[in-house]
Amino acid sequence: MLELRLVQGSLLKKVLEAIKDLVNDANFDCSATGFSLQAMDSSHVALVALLLRNEGFEHYRCDRNISMGMNLGNMNKMLKCAGNDDIITLKADDGSDTVTFMFESPNQDKIADFEMKLMDIDSEHLGIPEAEYHAIVRMPSTEFARICKDLSSIGDTVVISVTKEGVKFSTKGDIGTANIVCRQNTTVDKPEEATVIEMKEPVSLTFALRYMNSFAKATPLSHTVTISLSSELPVVVEYKIEDMGYVRFYLAPKIEEDEEEDTKPKV
Amino acid sequence: MLELRLVQGSLLKKVLEAIKDLVNDANFDCSATGFSLQAMDSSHVALVALLLRNEGFEHYRCDRNISMGMNLGNMNKMLKCAGNDDIITLKADDGSDTVTFMFESPNQDKIADFEMKLMDIDSEHLGIPEAEYHAIVRMPSTEFARICKDLSSIGDTVVISVTKEGVKFSTKGDIGTANIVCRQNTTVDKPEEATVIEMKEPVSLTFALRYMNSFAKATPLSHTVTISLSSELPVVVEYKIEDMGYVRFYLAPKIEEDEEEDTKPKV
Amino acid sequence: MLELRLVQGSLLKKVLEAIKDLVNDANFDCSATGFSLQAMDSSHVALVALLLRNEGFEHYRCDRNISMGMNLGNMNKMLKCAGNDDIITLKADDGSDTVTFMFESPNQDKIADFEMKLMDIDSEHLGIPEAEYHAIVRMPSTEFARICKDLSSIGDTVVISVTKEGVKFSTKGDIGTANIVCRQNTTVDKPEEATVIEMKEPVSLTFALRYMNSFAKATPLSHTVTISLSSELPVVVEYKIEDMGYVRFYLAPKIEEDEEEDTKPKV
Repeated sequence: MLELRLVQGSLLKKVLEAIKDLVNDANFDCSATGFSLQAMDSSHVALVALLLRNEGFEHYRCDRNISMGMNLGNMNKMLKCAGNDDIITLKADDGSDTVTFMFESPNQDKIADFEMKLMDIDSEHLGIPEAEYHAIVRMPSTEFARICKDLSSIGDTVVISVTKEGVKFSTKGDIGTANIVCRQNTTVDKPEEATVIEMKEPVSLTFALRYMNSFAKATPLSHTVTISLSSELPVVVEYKIEDMGYVRFYLAPKIEEDEEEDTKPKV
Repeated sequence: MLELRLVQGSLLKKVLEAIKDLVNDANFDCSATGFSLQAMDSSHVALVALLLRNEGFEHYRCDRNISMGMNLGNMNKMLKCAGNDDIITLKADDGSDTVTFMFESPNQDKIADFEMKLMDIDSEHLGIPEAEYHAIVRMPSTEFARICKDLSSIGDTVVISVTKEGVKFSTKGDIGTANIVCRQNTTVDKPEEATVIEMKEPVSLTFALRYMNSFAKATPLSHTVTISLSSELPVVVEYKIEDMGYVRFYLAPKIEEDEEEDTKPKV
Repeated sequence: MLELRLVQGSLLKKVLEAIKDLVNDANFDCSATGFSLQAMDSSHVALVALLLRNEGFEHYRCDRNISMGMNLGNMNKMLKCAGNDDIITLKADDGSDTVTFMFESPNQDKIADFEMKLMDIDSEHLGIPEAEYHAIVRMPSTEFARICKDLSSIGDTVVISVTKEGVKFSTKGDIGTANIVCRQNTTVDKPEEATVIEMKEPVSLTFALRYMNSFAKATPLSHTVTISLSSELPVVVEYKIEDMGYVRFYLAPKIEEDEEEDTKPKV
């Protein structure tokens, strides 16, 4: 028997909005310690990892480990029917082929339950080793989303280059070139407005903007985004979910043979 | 000669927004007591009845009964040109084949008049007898609109079931099932937020969601909606227009032969 | 060398939004006294003239007269990447075939530079003589925009008729006719809400609404619009840019042979 009660139900709504365009079908894995998901995007280029730890739920009961295959589009359709202030409870009986989402309005006047069929989905869980990154950038998530959107109107790829002074996002396309530099800045009124750079060595990597824009759909989940870069590893774009866990996106850099200088530091 | 001056012109704008998608052409009937309309929707399934009583107008002159055929799409195009604070006056000369809508801005700086050709429309006026209903539900109109919209993302029909405890809206579709229960609740801060159920006997009826969503376009006209249900009668979905009258929608329940249990009480 | 620094960068964003749909490619002319543009719309019916005087820039350096051919759609794509509070600097080296737009966020944390290729555009500069107009109407720009949009839902052309009492905008179409009269009104709380008419003689002219709606895209640039009318001249629709200059649109009246009375005063 599974019963997870999340007072801040809007979190689950935002999680689905963040990943539903990237991943069609996925297994949600539920254990005694938390509710998680790991899935490749439909073109098998990016990886999404979600964790919602048990302590973030008001009530968390998971008698045995269970993996529930869901169509994320359908799940999102149901979660859109929850109000932003609703409490969401996810329920499944042992051996059942359905999952139930229950939505309670704050004053308990309106109770909805939505039942969805589960799917059998083949998936292998990748072990993602802890890694050392050359550079870690923490910045306001809305700023990152704006930059990815703006650069998309000029080009298809973004070069992210980090030095101690700041992080540079560059692109070029038929109509011209664009460079946007965000300076390290820790003297802001609110900590979530800071741009903080931890750097072991300069790094410059190229990524498809299409994916960065998909990742940025997680912006409503967190005020800040953390971008971890290393020349031998996929970039990690992480949105922390307060007191509960995270959504992390992994994407391999593009190797552009005719533009090898793009992989060297440039800022 | 006809001259109807409505200080709160936005009411007429909202009336047109509420019915223009359901009804293409209709006769507006004007008598000494009020301005009214009765029309079937274009697929002859639902009926709309509008009444604006004479006492709701600042000035109301109607020398003799007159029936004016109008295309509601065109009438809506003209009324959209009125500002939300404008005074609207409707004028027609005896025997004229046109009607004039005059819009006056609150400070009288801007005066617009729009003249529209009238149409000859065959229509028979149905007598709608007063009836006793098994159950009458009064609830916030925005809540009803939200429920109809939410259920439409899951299924095509809604089963409305009423017991003393509350009203349940249910649907099912390819991706699963949904039930939304609104409990009777009269202890709210504002009377228009109450959900009040008057019930003689439990009732459970099935309707096409497409029509319910059309009716819900009248939501801006009133804070509350009243749903009157009886197993032998069309449902009445009524939006009262303060101090003036109402818009009422009538829709026959669906008889689903393979799902006869749907017509029995279920809450 | 050219370097123009505009603290209120949103002005340049609004200028591009105002003219980009009307004009595809145009030469921006830069001299010691200001930054200007004159261009026909793509169907060679309307003329746009822009002036931003040097004194409106925080820093203005233009060593020699230069004409820079730009695609306005591409320029607009780049300017959309500037924040509304950003400082915009336009730079070009002598003899360069590119122009650079630099955007600085108010706190200097984010610096972007966008480089765009220049184009060779054939254009001849028309001398526009100062003229005497029969009537000049100054009115709130949002009011004018609303009237043009409203009338477009009824007809394709607008007759603008001016008398001492006011200005009348009329149209007719398949569904009927519309007349909107704005009265002279100088006793308003805010000067930008006034409707002021200077008239030497009554005038009544017909214009294509499609162009008027294009011109009205300049509405965010100014609270008021000035419409200068004369029976022998193109109408001038002018949006003043505070402390800096203007955007002016010129459009020849339509001569409707079968409706000659349209050219006589009618208000």
